[in-house]
Amino acid sequence: MIIAIDAMGGDYAPKSVVAGALEALKLISPTDYLVLLGNQTLINELLGENKSNSQLKIVDCTEVIEMGEHPTKALSQKPNSSISIGFKMLKNHEVDVFCSAGNTGAMMVGSMFSVKVIEGIQRPAIVGFAPKAKGGKVVILDIGANADCKPEMLEQFAELGTIYAKATQGIEKPRVALMNIGEEEQKGSLVVQAAYQLLKDNKAVNFVGNVEGKDLFMDKADVIVCDGFTGNVILKLGESMYEILAAQGITNDFLAQANYEETGGSPIIGINENVIIGHGASTPKAIKNMILLAEKQVKSNVNNKIKEAFA
Amino acid sequence: MIIAIDAMGGDYAPKSVVAGALEALKLISPTDYLVLLGNQTLINELLGENKSNSQLKIVDCTEVIEMGEHPTKALSQKPNSSISIGFKMLKNHEVDVFCSAGNTGAMMVGSMFSVKVIEGIQRPAIVGFAPKAKGGKVVILDIGANADCKPEMLEQFAELGTIYAKATQGIEKPRVALMNIGEEEQKGSLVVQAAYQLLKDNKAVNFVGNVEGKDLFMDKADVIVCDGFTGNVILKLGESMYEILAAQGITNDFLAQANYEETGGSPIIGINENVIIGHGASTPKAIKNMILLAEKQVKSNVNNKIKEAFA
Repeated sequence: MIIAIDAMGGDYAPKSVVAGALEALKLISPTDYLVLLGNQTLINELLGENKSNSQLKIVDCTEVIEMGEHPTKALSQKPNSSISIGFKMLKNHEVDVFCSAGNTGAMMVGSMFSVKVIEGIQRPAIVGFAPKAKGGKVVILDIGANADCKPEMLEQFAELGTIYAKATQGIEKPRVALMNIGEEEQKGSLVVQAAYQLLKDNKAVNFVGNVEGKDLFMDKADVIVCDGFTGNVILKLGESMYEILAAQGITNDFLAQANYEETGGSPIIGINENVIIGHGASTPKAIKNMILLAEKQVKSNVNNKIKEAFA
Repeated sequence: MIIAIDAMGGDYAPKSVVAGALEALKLISPTDYLVLLGNQTLINELLGENKSNSQLKIVDCTEVIEMGEHPTKALSQKPNSSISIGFKMLKNHEVDVFCSAGNTGAMMVGSMFSVKVIEGIQRPAIVGFAPKAKGGKVVILDIGANADCKPEMLEQFAELGTIYAKATQGIEKPRVALMNIGEEEQKGSLVVQAAYQLLKDNKAVNFVGNVEGKDLFMDKADVIVCDGFTGNVILKLGESMYEILAAQGITNDFLAQANYEETGGSPIIGINENVIIGHGASTPKAIKNMILLAEKQVKSNVNNKIKEAFA
């Protein structure tokens, strides 16, 4: 398996990315390779004596897409950037997965227009993970790709989340819930009410009804479906609880799992290849975990399973 | 000031309500009165020797609207219920505020069709409070009355929140932010993007831009505006963090303020009278704090200030 990492992506790149990649190297399978995309001179300096590691390769990229750049413009104007080259290699099957903690918009645009959306999928979704109070993680989608959703999109996220949780977590019939503001089926926004009706009749989904904000961490479901606005707000809120309490000297196993560094990244699913986006402020630990998440996802073969389901 | 409390409202009523009212009696002004609405025999039994307290009155109500009942039907079919009588007394200015931890839907219907919406207000909003990491509370609206909002409604929530925070918290020019999924003005759902444009030009509001989920507790604003779907999800999520961590033996000053019992209730604003709804599972402590919140709100004269602003 070949895992490509954007060495120039994120607020602390390339230093943080290279450090994280070196940590990941100790943990990934000996048959896996890491490809670092970015400024070769800088990367080599940071690698030091590790540059001769046989599981490491560098692809020199002479351009960088900055965090604040306009995604579409940047991708077309910087063909030699690490993100542009990452998508090119992914499309040509030179790598199995592409990870970046860089410009999220550029990663979304690359996903949709370079590797492209799987036929039959209306919109790709970004997957997030929230810790369960009793241990384990709940899959949430969408967490930001689609601020406005139609009921049919939420229904499809439920199908995508089902396949994702089954493939990557080994749950035979993942329980899928709709994030809402009450348990009853007539609760919520018009879109969510309509999505409830679609999910009730969807045989590909083990729909367990609505959950509320208070249920997020309570293992009421394995997959929680919401629009990208709601998902983004709640995920960032959960992460901030970890940070606030850590700053106040409080942590425990549950809170530690709310730390974004533990998950490392968010897969974009519903597209033809494996793409994982990371937190802009990614630390070496976050990068390491993004690489491990990428390895797990490629191994799960989830993308082919999605393609089969929507064929 | 006369504060009316629905003694039959909430999962642990009337016991919990009467106990909470007795606690509040020790803290409210000696010129305030509490009116307990409900089954007189039951209430008297629970009051015991306190029934002769000169600041306490009971209004006997022979019916009860249960938590699961259809709001509109229940209100018309049970004119002698504590909620129906509470709204009647409020409308007739026999009491200054009506609090209930009972059927939220019935409280909303009573607010809209008995005491009625202030002229010029499109939709009333429910106000929530989230703790700031450094102390104090941020006002959030709407937290559940309006799952679907138009941009103009969000703009009006900003105006209502401004008046509320100024009147009840004494903040001269409350900072108002829009809950969103990014800082930039072009971020978010179509409704939120349009609301941003309206708020930018609104001279009655000290608009400070977007905040994200991670900013909720970070004192980036005094008032946070969102639709009732988003507000409900994030508030319940915050409350659950307190509960999960308390169950795991962890708490501190910040988390304690995320406990709904500390706030006690959520005002419905934009209506002609003072109405406060409480958590269904209200404990005596929550009821006590709901009464103190009611006292503070009446004293602030916020409803008249809203009427003046929209006159």
